[in-house]
Amino acid sequence: MSEQAVDKLTSKDYYFDSYAHFGIHEEMLKDKVRTNSYKDAILNNKHLFKDKIVLDVGCGTGILSMFAAKAGAKHVMGVDMSNIIDKAQLIIEENGFAGKITLLKGKMEEVILPYPEVDIIISEWMGYFLLYESMLDTVLVARDKYLVPGGLMFPDKASMIIAGIEDGPYKEEKISFWDDVYGFKMSCIKETALNEPLVDVVGGNAIVTTAYSFKEIDLKTVTKEELSFSTEFKITALCDDYVHAFISWFDIWFSACHKPVYFSTGPKSNYTHWKQTVFYTKDTLTIDKGDSITGTLTCRPNGSNPRDLDISIEYNLDNKNQTVSDTCIYRMS
Amino acid sequence: MSEQAVDKLTSKDYYFDSYAHFGIHEEMLKDKVRTNSYKDAILNNKHLFKDKIVLDVGCGTGILSMFAAKAGAKHVMGVDMSNIIDKAQLIIEENGFAGKITLLKGKMEEVILPYPEVDIIISEWMGYFLLYESMLDTVLVARDKYLVPGGLMFPDKASMIIAGIEDGPYKEEKISFWDDVYGFKMSCIKETALNEPLVDVVGGNAIVTTAYSFKEIDLKTVTKEELSFSTEFKITALCDDYVHAFISWFDIWFSACHKPVYFSTGPKSNYTHWKQTVFYTKDTLTIDKGDSITGTLTCRPNGSNPRDLDISIEYNLDNKNQTVSDTCIYRMS
Repeated sequence: MSEQAVDKLTSKDYYFDSYAHFGIHEEMLKDKVRTNSYKDAILNNKHLFKDKIVLDVGCGTGILSMFAAKAGAKHVMGVDMSNIIDKAQLIIEENGFAGKITLLKGKMEEVILPYPEVDIIISEWMGYFLLYESMLDTVLVARDKYLVPGGLMFPDKASMIIAGIEDGPYKEEKISFWDDVYGFKMSCIKETALNEPLVDVVGGNAIVTTAYSFKEIDLKTVTKEELSFSTEFKITALCDDYVHAFISWFDIWFSACHKPVYFSTGPKSNYTHWKQTVFYTKDTLTIDKGDSITGTLTCRPNGSNPRDLDISIEYNLDNKNQTVSDTCIYRMS
Repeated sequence: MSEQAVDKLTSKDYYFDSYAHFGIHEEMLKDKVRTNSYKDAILNNKHLFKDKIVLDVGCGTGILSMFAAKAGAKHVMGVDMSNIIDKAQLIIEENGFAGKITLLKGKMEEVILPYPEVDIIISEWMGYFLLYESMLDTVLVARDKYLVPGGLMFPDKASMIIAGIEDGPYKEEKISFWDDVYGFKMSCIKETALNEPLVDVVGGNAIVTTAYSFKEIDLKTVTKEELSFSTEFKITALCDDYVHAFISWFDIWFSACHKPVYFSTGPKSNYTHWKQTVFYTKDTLTIDKGDSITGTLTCRPNGSNPRDLDISIEYNLDNKNQTVSDTCIYRMS
């Protein structure tokens, strides 16, 4: 099943707007960790929202705007460039918020807001690996243009974490599979598979090293430029084991709340639709408890396709089993 | 996470070719029911392939072309318009088939084949609900243009089947969910969800009626026009139960084989990546064992977006519990 589906994708009008389909919003809404965190952060902090002007960047179905309206905001503005906002308009009307919420269809950079300043920006902007296809750039534009001094960001902090995992059987299935596909070798696909981070659920037991937070993002101050970065890391073996891959996840804070709201997308936490991001290494590392793997993780938008992320992980292990230094290059696209 | 991802889809060059990514081919190759059926049909029938000219329509990674070459074909031509064919070229070279297989990138209607006639057409053209985003039109073009009289089609027969299922809890999760989304109603999305067939795995135990084959397709003779159709069906309750949805699946035959090869994508058969297609009805039907539900299923490409399928199911139940006649309209897009 291939040719016609490809053909279909040449129709720009037709395939223009993947967020118009309700399925992606269903997945996000049914991610209870995600949605309940926003609900708790907003509805349990009515003292912060009462009589405030709130901006919801990338409002989708309007759920966060409705939380803010319910929390007592004076007015909420929701912005989204996807056609899903047409459904959001019906939804806010159905739920009696037509006078409290104004929805604006378009790019954040171009829409004209009915209020020139906002007290609070709410946004669920996070992508896989936090930054892949994320809407963070847009949130920063909104912050710099509209947020009053001392205004609040919901969420306001994010942290990106790396660890090592034992993942032999699955690496076999995802990578070695291409060595023998019904009797044939497909080396070129194996190579592509190795260079592409895999978004998947990792079991908490797979983690065999300490976790290291390699990037902390303060949403109130971070700049777009700081989202291209290179940072050192050091993780330490928790047991005698093998490392087949690095994994990354992120944690999110709403620290302006009376009782801070926090959630993690890590493998030891409850499932979220962001899962974890797996970076298979060419070599398998043999580690003894207490050994350290040091390295440098670099992340930046691809030069020609800025929506792609170029990620490299340079790592070093020097123990009684082996001496390995390698640089693995990945592209999320 | 929305705004930038949408933006990305405006880049036609970038998102032009979803079949270029290996992930979709990985899913298809790892569908063992699918791939082993083709493998068995081809490799266990070397007497049919020996010294024959074979055309593989929508060759993808080249797996079927390699099966045919291995089965002794004189020459195999693989056609695909996706960039995956560049990888297929590397793959056939890696496996020593460069002299036996010629790959041609482009539309079936436009490529110039090195042989003016072919003895066998192989193709894995099937889409969800058999016909959604299927490549069957293209296969028929190739058949009419290139297949010699008496030539073979692999596969050569397909059958589409309907049955009724009891699916209360899942219908609740998929449809009633929109009645109370964290305290809000989203009726407009509920309506959309009801009108969109759901491709999902249905348990064999969910089936509470007989199954009815409503469309038989003979690949050697079917015309494009016959893929728009309206057909009556009749299914009979196997027990006292409820019907929350109709489901459809398809079966595939390679009947030219010495020992015919067949596979089913039905809920009582092994998993395939096609899963089943679920059509929720607005009403729940209360059926007693032996009751019949009669109806008419209509399927045709959408007028303005011919890659979409418009499907309607008109059904009637008249038993001691209720008298229902309804027409449910669906669109696969």
